[in-house]
Amino acid sequence: MPRSVTSFSNDTVKLIRSLRDRKARRESGLFLAEGLRILTEARDSGLLPEIVAFAPAGAAHRLAREIIAATEAAGGEAIETTPDILTKMSGKDNPGLLLGAYRQPATDLGRIDRSAAPLWIVAQALRDPGNIGTILRTGDATGAGGLILIDDCADPYSVEAVRASMGAVFTQAIAAARWEEFVSWLRSGPGQLVGTSLRTDTDYLAARYEAPCFLLIGNESHGLPADYERECDSLVKIPMAGRADSLNAAVATAVMAFQVRASWRD
Amino acid sequence: MPRSVTSFSNDTVKLIRSLRDRKARRESGLFLAEGLRILTEARDSGLLPEIVAFAPAGAAHRLAREIIAATEAAGGEAIETTPDILTKMSGKDNPGLLLGAYRQPATDLGRIDRSAAPLWIVAQALRDPGNIGTILRTGDATGAGGLILIDDCADPYSVEAVRASMGAVFTQAIAAARWEEFVSWLRSGPGQLVGTSLRTDTDYLAARYEAPCFLLIGNESHGLPADYERECDSLVKIPMAGRADSLNAAVATAVMAFQVRASWRD
Repeated sequence: MPRSVTSFSNDTVKLIRSLRDRKARRESGLFLAEGLRILTEARDSGLLPEIVAFAPAGAAHRLAREIIAATEAAGGEAIETTPDILTKMSGKDNPGLLLGAYRQPATDLGRIDRSAAPLWIVAQALRDPGNIGTILRTGDATGAGGLILIDDCADPYSVEAVRASMGAVFTQAIAAARWEEFVSWLRSGPGQLVGTSLRTDTDYLAARYEAPCFLLIGNESHGLPADYERECDSLVKIPMAGRADSLNAAVATAVMAFQVRASWRD
Repeated sequence: MPRSVTSFSNDTVKLIRSLRDRKARRESGLFLAEGLRILTEARDSGLLPEIVAFAPAGAAHRLAREIIAATEAAGGEAIETTPDILTKMSGKDNPGLLLGAYRQPATDLGRIDRSAAPLWIVAQALRDPGNIGTILRTGDATGAGGLILIDDCADPYSVEAVRASMGAVFTQAIAAARWEEFVSWLRSGPGQLVGTSLRTDTDYLAARYEAPCFLLIGNESHGLPADYERECDSLVKIPMAGRADSLNAAVATAVMAFQVRASWRD
């Protein structure tokens, strides 16, 4: 049976609330997802929260009741609380009436099965958690297997990234590695490394993409380091028509990922 | 000569600071842009701020000194202040050392010259200012003439939108209109209205796009209203490979805009 919690100082409330901080996420190994739609996406991907928190109205929906019951059946904790406390826990004005704290999967490269998908997205030093979440969402839409984060990136398990992913944080594999480690892993098997760059004349529409294709995207401000570009099997350029010379990182990733897919449909 | 301002309660400081609020932007007709790169983009597009504020180190760059001098020569105000006060004015931790308050251009449809560009982006009820800024940036990159905002959208002159636009707020024409008003204007001249939708079988890669092409994007959560879709000359679908049935609105816009351009290059 769900436990009723009405105090802001309850330990579970404090734990969930702490998950907005990266340090607390690292220490607890948990992360926060909000709303029935995303929790259902997780459940449909075989994942249940370790803690589910809901307001009474949040349990009105059949799917919510199923998730709450399944969480308890699996040994997790369910707490019924107030919309005020839910809002405080998520830090969002309208978090929905259902929150889940999930175990972060391990992010070592060894968990990535490159044969599982024709496309993988590799992002280097991305700073904006919204971009990471949006890239996960785009990965899901383009049939990518997952996202490999290189060097120091924003946390894919931050509240902002999870929100922007619209559930794809549960369906995309996520790994993190230093560059040298990634290159060593990549070259131990098949795979074409494709970087987007301004320092090439190869148009992204004219390039040939081969599965498994690893699409490498650089930092929002600086793009890819020159030696990372040199490691690429193919460098391509998205031509710009206007004054600016760059795109938002999540937009560039999407334009590339959709073009890779489109080229395979010809 | 720039005036030195060291007090948070200075009227100009308070005015600039107020520009984070939509009401203050509406009343003053001004908006805020931050950083040398974006102010230079504005200047190169023929636009100077009415007020420029900078920290001493911010005037170290030749371009910054040119913008400050040109602002004063044009009858604008230049204030030299502290990094602390600049940060307070922009609400951003690291706003750069240069801020400008610019006059908002009029946003009536009559200002749009559809013959000036082959592509125009039309966004309906977009709620996220970051999406609006990112779409402006994508518009610049794809040679769009500008962005037409339909119904109640987030403010393209908000600090978040201006930041995300990376200067494209100065290079893209921006108009705002109710739907009926837009349709009436659209049908008074040439133009293909293309909507993205799940309620069609036409693949976005197979569709034929004609200039001037008006690319219509719907609200982040709800997409386009059904009667807006019926008005479209062409409805196209971006096929999804994964579990989700939608893309981030700025991503969908970019995928479409780049495909429209690509189709014209064949």
